[in-house]
Amino acid sequence: MAAITIFGKGNMGQAIGDVFKQGGNDVTYLGNGDPVKDLGDIVVLAVPYPAAISIAKTNLAALIGKIVVDITNPLNFDTWDDLVVPSDSSAAEEIQRLLMDSTVVKVFNTTFAATLKSRKVGGQQTTVMAASDSNDAKEALAAALKDSGVAFVDAGALKRARELESFGFLQMTLAAKETIGWTGGFAVEK
Amino acid sequence: MAAITIFGKGNMGQAIGDVFKQGGNDVTYLGNGDPVKDLGDIVVLAVPYPAAISIAKTNLAALIGKIVVDITNPLNFDTWDDLVVPSDSSAAEEIQRLLMDSTVVKVFNTTFAATLKSRKVGGQQTTVMAASDSNDAKEALAAALKDSGVAFVDAGALKRARELESFGFLQMTLAAKETIGWTGGFAVEK
Repeated sequence: MAAITIFGKGNMGQAIGDVFKQGGNDVTYLGNGDPVKDLGDIVVLAVPYPAAISIAKTNLAALIGKIVVDITNPLNFDTWDDLVVPSDSSAAEEIQRLLMDSTVVKVFNTTFAATLKSRKVGGQQTTVMAASDSNDAKEALAAALKDSGVAFVDAGALKRARELESFGFLQMTLAAKETIGWTGGFAVEK
Repeated sequence: MAAITIFGKGNMGQAIGDVFKQGGNDVTYLGNGDPVKDLGDIVVLAVPYPAAISIAKTNLAALIGKIVVDITNPLNFDTWDDLVVPSDSSAAEEIQRLLMDSTVVKVFNTTFAATLKSRKVGGQQTTVMAASDSNDAKEALAAALKDSGVAFVDAGALKRARELESFGFLQMTLAAKETIGWTGGFAVEK
């Protein structure tokens, strides 16, 4: 059982909290303006990318030693044609650069809120993919998700967040065009 | 029915030819050193990225007016940690830059040879995703694949080849680590 704090009570925050609760973890939420204290070992930034950067900058000390989960897809929502992070970086790496004494894990950006909640992508079990330079952090997340109904895949080092974010970006463009539904997307088949 | 010429008789070239044949098209192959003549309307470069660049440079005139299909995943196979194309470009865009008077479509890079041949990714129907700045070219490919047993998705402009190549890269790293099998991968669920 892990103590998990989730910044953000939106669709993604709620779906992620539900998954972790089913996994037997202790989940607490922090909304905008709530005092940042008593953070769990795993802190999920379930907010858009600009807000995640802002939370990181404002709470450097509180996040020291924590596993910080970045779930963002840093789209340019004006154009839907680019990400707002440099093409040779990723949201996760930018957040890790700010949080030198935290361990950032990219995860939950390749599934929609609906497919996390239902544990199904179309007809297949929902799988989340995690990238981090810390194997311990990925193992802690895998353990916390063990009984959650969601499968877990280690996608490699934090640099792979670039590909996870491209994957999430592409999936969102297809859903926005109604080529796929928000209850579908890319399923991981072993 | 389309006339299709495939450069390359490897696993991918054979699987792609098989798919197009089932789609009722006329498929011919060109191997290394074969004379380049009588090309079909659709020309598939079913070779590694450096060879695709070489074919493009050598056959600029022969490829004028053709739909040129780029299937490559331009990995740095020494490191498996990067692509060899600039991070703000893609193999498909680099090939399009060379072939100013051809129409490049990125497709077939997000499926393994085995999943093209079987028409299944795990338990799901295999779907190919295509990126191009020409809707006509994408429609020609969709028509040629209509009865092929493989589903077709329009993934947008040629710029989306960046995300398709990230998708293919990630999928290959997972298969190389045996996290997924070469008969599995990322399925598209509507």
